[in-house]
Amino acid sequence: MAATAATREAPAREGRAFPPPPATARPIDRAAWLSAYRHVRAETERRAAPLSPEDQQIQSMADASPTKWHRAHTTWFFEQFLLREHLPGYAIHDERWHYLFNSYYVAAGPRQPRIARGLITRPDAEEVTAYRRHVDRAVETLLGQAAPAALELVLPILEIGLYHEQQHQELILTDILHAFAQNPLGAVYDPGWRFPKPHGRGGAAELDRAIVQVGHAGEGFSFDNEHPRHDALILPCTIDRALVTNGQWQAFMRDGGYARADLWLSDGWIAAQEQGWEAPGYWRRDDAGWTVMTLAGCRPVEPDLPVTHISYYEADAYARWAGRDLPSEAEWEVAAGAGQLDDAFGLVWQWTRSAYTAYPGYRPLPGALGEYNGKFMANQFVLRGSSVATPEGHARLPYRNFFYPHQRWQFTGLRLAHQRA
Amino acid sequence: MAATAATREAPAREGRAFPPPPATARPIDRAAWLSAYRHVRAETERRAAPLSPEDQQIQSMADASPTKWHRAHTTWFFEQFLLREHLPGYAIHDERWHYLFNSYYVAAGPRQPRIARGLITRPDAEEVTAYRRHVDRAVETLLGQAAPAALELVLPILEIGLYHEQQHQELILTDILHAFAQNPLGAVYDPGWRFPKPHGRGGAAELDRAIVQVGHAGEGFSFDNEHPRHDALILPCTIDRALVTNGQWQAFMRDGGYARADLWLSDGWIAAQEQGWEAPGYWRRDDAGWTVMTLAGCRPVEPDLPVTHISYYEADAYARWAGRDLPSEAEWEVAAGAGQLDDAFGLVWQWTRSAYTAYPGYRPLPGALGEYNGKFMANQFVLRGSSVATPEGHARLPYRNFFYPHQRWQFTGLRLAHQRA
Amino acid sequence: MAATAATREAPAREGRAFPPPPATARPIDRAAWLSAYRHVRAETERRAAPLSPEDQQIQSMADASPTKWHRAHTTWFFEQFLLREHLPGYAIHDERWHYLFNSYYVAAGPRQPRIARGLITRPDAEEVTAYRRHVDRAVETLLGQAAPAALELVLPILEIGLYHEQQHQELILTDILHAFAQNPLGAVYDPGWRFPKPHGRGGAAELDRAIVQVGHAGEGFSFDNEHPRHDALILPCTIDRALVTNGQWQAFMRDGGYARADLWLSDGWIAAQEQGWEAPGYWRRDDAGWTVMTLAGCRPVEPDLPVTHISYYEADAYARWAGRDLPSEAEWEVAAGAGQLDDAFGLVWQWTRSAYTAYPGYRPLPGALGEYNGKFMANQFVLRGSSVATPEGHARLPYRNFFYPHQRWQFTGLRLAHQRA
Amino acid sequence: MAATAATREAPAREGRAFPPPPATARPIDRAAWLSAYRHVRAETERRAAPLSPEDQQIQSMADASPTKWHRAHTTWFFEQFLLREHLPGYAIHDERWHYLFNSYYVAAGPRQPRIARGLITRPDAEEVTAYRRHVDRAVETLLGQAAPAALELVLPILEIGLYHEQQHQELILTDILHAFAQNPLGAVYDPGWRFPKPHGRGGAAELDRAIVQVGHAGEGFSFDNEHPRHDALILPCTIDRALVTNGQWQAFMRDGGYARADLWLSDGWIAAQEQGWEAPGYWRRDDAGWTVMTLAGCRPVEPDLPVTHISYYEADAYARWAGRDLPSEAEWEVAAGAGQLDDAFGLVWQWTRSAYTAYPGYRPLPGALGEYNGKFMANQFVLRGSSVATPEGHARLPYRNFFYPHQRWQFTGLRLAHQRA
Repeated sequence: MAATAATREAPAREGRAFPPPPATARPIDRAAWLSAYRHVRAETERRAAPLSPEDQQIQSMADASPTKWHRAHTTWFFEQFLLREHLPGYAIHDERWHYLFNSYYVAAGPRQPRIARGLITRPDAEEVTAYRRHVDRAVETLLGQAAPAALELVLPILEIGLYHEQQHQELILTDILHAFAQNPLGAVYDPGWRFPKPHGRGGAAELDRAIVQVGHAGEGFSFDNEHPRHDALILPCTIDRALVTNGQWQAFMRDGGYARADLWLSDGWIAAQEQGWEAPGYWRRDDAGWTVMTLAGCRPVEPDLPVTHISYYEADAYARWAGRDLPSEAEWEVAAGAGQLDDAFGLVWQWTRSAYTAYPGYRPLPGALGEYNGKFMANQFVLRGSSVATPEGHARLPYRNFFYPHQRWQFTGLRLAHQRA
Repeated sequence: MAATAATREAPAREGRAFPPPPATARPIDRAAWLSAYRHVRAETERRAAPLSPEDQQIQSMADASPTKWHRAHTTWFFEQFLLREHLPGYAIHDERWHYLFNSYYVAAGPRQPRIARGLITRPDAEEVTAYRRHVDRAVETLLGQAAPAALELVLPILEIGLYHEQQHQELILTDILHAFAQNPLGAVYDPGWRFPKPHGRGGAAELDRAIVQVGHAGEGFSFDNEHPRHDALILPCTIDRALVTNGQWQAFMRDGGYARADLWLSDGWIAAQEQGWEAPGYWRRDDAGWTVMTLAGCRPVEPDLPVTHISYYEADAYARWAGRDLPSEAEWEVAAGAGQLDDAFGLVWQWTRSAYTAYPGYRPLPGALGEYNGKFMANQFVLRGSSVATPEGHARLPYRNFFYPHQRWQFTGLRLAHQRA
Repeated sequence: MAATAATREAPAREGRAFPPPPATARPIDRAAWLSAYRHVRAETERRAAPLSPEDQQIQSMADASPTKWHRAHTTWFFEQFLLREHLPGYAIHDERWHYLFNSYYVAAGPRQPRIARGLITRPDAEEVTAYRRHVDRAVETLLGQAAPAALELVLPILEIGLYHEQQHQELILTDILHAFAQNPLGAVYDPGWRFPKPHGRGGAAELDRAIVQVGHAGEGFSFDNEHPRHDALILPCTIDRALVTNGQWQAFMRDGGYARADLWLSDGWIAAQEQGWEAPGYWRRDDAGWTVMTLAGCRPVEPDLPVTHISYYEADAYARWAGRDLPSEAEWEVAAGAGQLDDAFGLVWQWTRSAYTAYPGYRPLPGALGEYNGKFMANQFVLRGSSVATPEGHARLPYRNFFYPHQRWQFTGLRLAHQRA
Repeated sequence: MAATAATREAPAREGRAFPPPPATARPIDRAAWLSAYRHVRAETERRAAPLSPEDQQIQSMADASPTKWHRAHTTWFFEQFLLREHLPGYAIHDERWHYLFNSYYVAAGPRQPRIARGLITRPDAEEVTAYRRHVDRAVETLLGQAAPAALELVLPILEIGLYHEQQHQELILTDILHAFAQNPLGAVYDPGWRFPKPHGRGGAAELDRAIVQVGHAGEGFSFDNEHPRHDALILPCTIDRALVTNGQWQAFMRDGGYARADLWLSDGWIAAQEQGWEAPGYWRRDDAGWTVMTLAGCRPVEPDLPVTHISYYEADAYARWAGRDLPSEAEWEVAAGAGQLDDAFGLVWQWTRSAYTAYPGYRPLPGALGEYNGKFMANQFVLRGSSVATPEGHARLPYRNFFYPHQRWQFTGLRLAHQRA
């Protein structure tokens, strides 16, 4: 299969509140932007709704954050980057909260140490709700009243704020799952939650040697790390259409996958030993077999579902065990763009073998927002696609997600590939 | 002053709900015990009342525990040691909570790791309230219905449960103060809270050489570590009547007390350097001088108040700087018992120079309750008296409190002494 | 400049004992192999000669190893992979040493923990000398007596053993420099040692868009990670001919390079703060300015010498400060192969912006030697060229060195590049 | 048995080079002091003689020090406290070594971090030998030439220097044993070394209630922490004459001694779990049973020998298992002073139940030597007697040794006691 034109975006936009029109579309559709804003903001609250004040308070590890913090930080983002500069007469809700809810923007000033986010009991969940309302009213005012010329400056910031909030919506679910998994009695986020079934037809996509373009194109939203769009050389390779399943993973486990150092990267082996990994994250063995902690509580492992909560190190070991590779991010982008991959979106993020580095000629945004993606370009690997926790309308073909190779609290999985001679 | 008979108990019992009669007093006064039980249980809730569900959730360091946990653990104590065995037909509130709310009783089974107490969001604060009501009803039933012979077995357990709960009442205050001190915006437990003024007349008590009896005597309640009452040799010494004050401590600071290694124990100097100690706990310097984080929020340091939130290492360094010693616990007990010390009770626990070890011939209680005191007899120092956070009726003359020499989140202070040639 | 054929190998082989002929060259030139073996083995001893038994004993950090261990481990490598299987009747010098001197070959059995290599005082340095002689005699016997068919199996192993030993020769120097830098009185390895002057003509190489071949070609020695040779797409870019110098680095320092978070990768900033980096490794400031610990002891920093002992994080921050990039490893290989870079070899290893990952279709060697390179393909960055510590004859154009981005005890430096629009 | 006069000193002085006469004895016997000095200094070298330069170089844990460092530090002690001030015209051997060989005397200036003592390869062992000779010559000059008035000042310092060096002689053996135990192949200090047989008659000493004097008396040498001699109250108790043996300890092990939390102090249980203690230090189980690493290498555990290399926590757990106590240091001193204990000296230091704190009215020496003992008076326990590694003539009845309760690399053992009703 040569790289051909295909659905560039995972889901088409149609009759949905999100994504909004491109920030560059003219005339500006204020109603659509207002709708998108309300839609995204409401989704955050919808995800937080099943959680008590106690649930929203805790931080179960340094990588995770409290739900309350996510709700406040996404609000701070609009206040800091949008309202403070662009809404004349805007009254900061509480200047002191700036310190609490800045995440990692060094240029935006000092901030609460990441590890200590769970220690802030005040403001409480209700006060954060009030904060959200305060900012929502102001953003709606801005959207309604700003002159068109002002809106042109505002919309790109509003847009990044919406995508930013969606990223935190995903984290709300993954972080609370981690927190609930620490409770020896278990805890249920949503008793009706189920992992979606894969569509997998099986078989493989064949990519031929080609120079292709990768990275973001066109008018829609993108993050800076998807730029510049550039030529890449694809060598002949084969990528499985289907994701690796729990059942296949259990074969790896039965074959000693977690006990054979020769299958692992050196750093991966050390991590596996130190963490005592014997199965994917949240798996527990009891008398009746393997169960897994999910958003619906503890459930039996289903063999046909895609494996998830695996680290890069595990994905890499699995591929080595299978005599295969992970795809590169360019290979993935080409195959998915041509519609050749099943479940590219919506189930699990898929580890690629590509280290997360800058595209050739990449330069971050100026100012504090330049810290969004660029400063993390070391020691991480790229994941592509999206997961069951990704909000609707968020996923896009050239999207580059990234995590450290030892992390596995996200909904992360894999598909296999190999180079053809 | 020779050691003479004196008020053995800090406060006399009179018209107060607590302490209850001695568990050995006959006939058994059911009403008095019921009243004492209700009094103690209500005091816990009174102390938790100003705290939101979020406040009650968090654990700000390994030494501290969440308010919610204190409320549940004290309840578990009655369920585990009293109701489970002694109330026929008692329905355990939730068997699974046993794991969550056992503190350190190895003999009572496995338990939630201490460091992870703050990760339990469910049960939430309301469910813990229901748990408390469930147990309260059962205890009241037991007190009302048990035959006298059964009550004789029950009362000593009930009694230790009440003193145990009072100890946690003190921790509720010290632990939430620590938690609030982590909030960069500050947080106020009770805006009207004030540290009580000392009564200090000044001067010193003179103890002559004598063989005295120390440890618990008589019928009232005692912990096992106050036994056996035994003879001790007092050598001639002088003990200050007054506690060391903030003003005196500031003289130590101005004289380089935190910068002169020669004043410190070796382990203390290491702790001070690692922790960056330059003043007592919770002190902060701002443009207007020293302030201190209190239960009423941040307040100016008052020179006439007793210094508090100091570690043993600091107390020891101060004494060396002053050319004095700390009293031994026997010296303190004799002097306080003779009414020679001001503010022996109710302001700050007073570090003694006595390492916390067993009295000669000491044997712990049999069973899980034997883990109460005995297993901590290494690496800690004895404190005597009681503090502003100690519940009314809890303090007693022979009471042996103990903490590690680096700890300073309790209301700990000191008074000076020295041996006479 | 298009990528054209050029000197593939850094130094030509001519009248030198090393490198040996390709292992595939026929007829087999036993004398040349014997000479190469002796040459390499003698070089190790030459590098160890200035070091006392004490010097050879210590391990100054987990990343470094004792000189004595390097001398023994390289010897064990021949014993384990060559003699044990291929010299009939070979008497293992001491079976128990296998445990001591295996480095990280999990497939070759358990081994002394890396961190504890410095705790093995016995065998002592003299006994290791005897071990080296024992193995040398056996290897020489094998080379002299083996039938040609047997030699065909032996030579590839011998060859990798020689390159392996040369890698440890470089480490002998970098590790002892680190050890001596821990001695507050300083220590001198060789008073006559001087860092070589760069040849730098200045100016820049211009690479045009091209598909080029990278990786090892031809008959000579290569490591597995240089394979498979494959096509790569070069985008238009510019690479400086010269290395960055100490003088240029000082301009970065004067401009706050170590104090501006916006110049740094997030992980790099954390490392810099934790380690207190304010200058390259081994630099110290005294009254007369900056000095640097070298193999000749402490010396003034010379502005015209290439900067060295910098981490990837520092190289990356410097490039960002300069508004430039580091070259990719493919760009470096093309430019150096065309003779367009000054001092590509022999001064400092040059950080590239390429994460160390597998070439497309890479498979490691079978057996324990497969652990040589492949299992380190995560979290590290590629360095190209060679350094002042690299033994003569070792450097080659497609050579891929790799280290973690925080490491800086090697002779590591940088040159700048940037993409052309 | 009432406390009666008895042999105050473990061994009588007679025809031996050490101890020297009391520093206060007049007329001053220069020859005896010279002889004592030479004797002690020679003993250090005798203990170091079996050790190679490599052996003398390493530090196997933070608590231990290299042999070379012990040899140099004891020499520095004489240079720093004796020669620098009291020998006119003395030429410091190397001013820079002051930093290297100061141990913990903060008042004597900054020093090499304890943990990094093993990283100093230069000066090497031979240079330290030359240092020792340089100082020895100077001390002998001082002893020979000083006027009597000057000698009166000098002798107390010389005396403490000799006892200090003897303490390091003991450490030379315990530290090298620890180092050799890290070598997986084992290492032998002295093939002929054997643990001496106990003399134990069995039975028990009975102490009656009495006020006794404890602490140093008379003219002979003492450390400051043995002062002031003071009255202590002994309550009726029983002390075993014999030390606990390996055979008895194995009964404890068979009875689950290392697996029963109820036998252990809380801190002890944590230490035992973290360190994986299942037997005394250096014990290893192989097919033939228990062996133990000794100065003669690995040897079978002999049931009749006293158990050694046990921590306080283990001693305490054993006593609890046996339903007994450890003696207090006062009880030990009274019983040993009355000749009622077997093997009080010369086999193993005996843990007491006494925390290491100041005697009433204790004040340390002025100046840097005041850091000798006093600053360690927290978190440690007192041991009494002496061990197989203690140099001849060093042990004395009131001697107070002290270690942290988790430490077990010394020759530490126990005897049991209990209070009589």
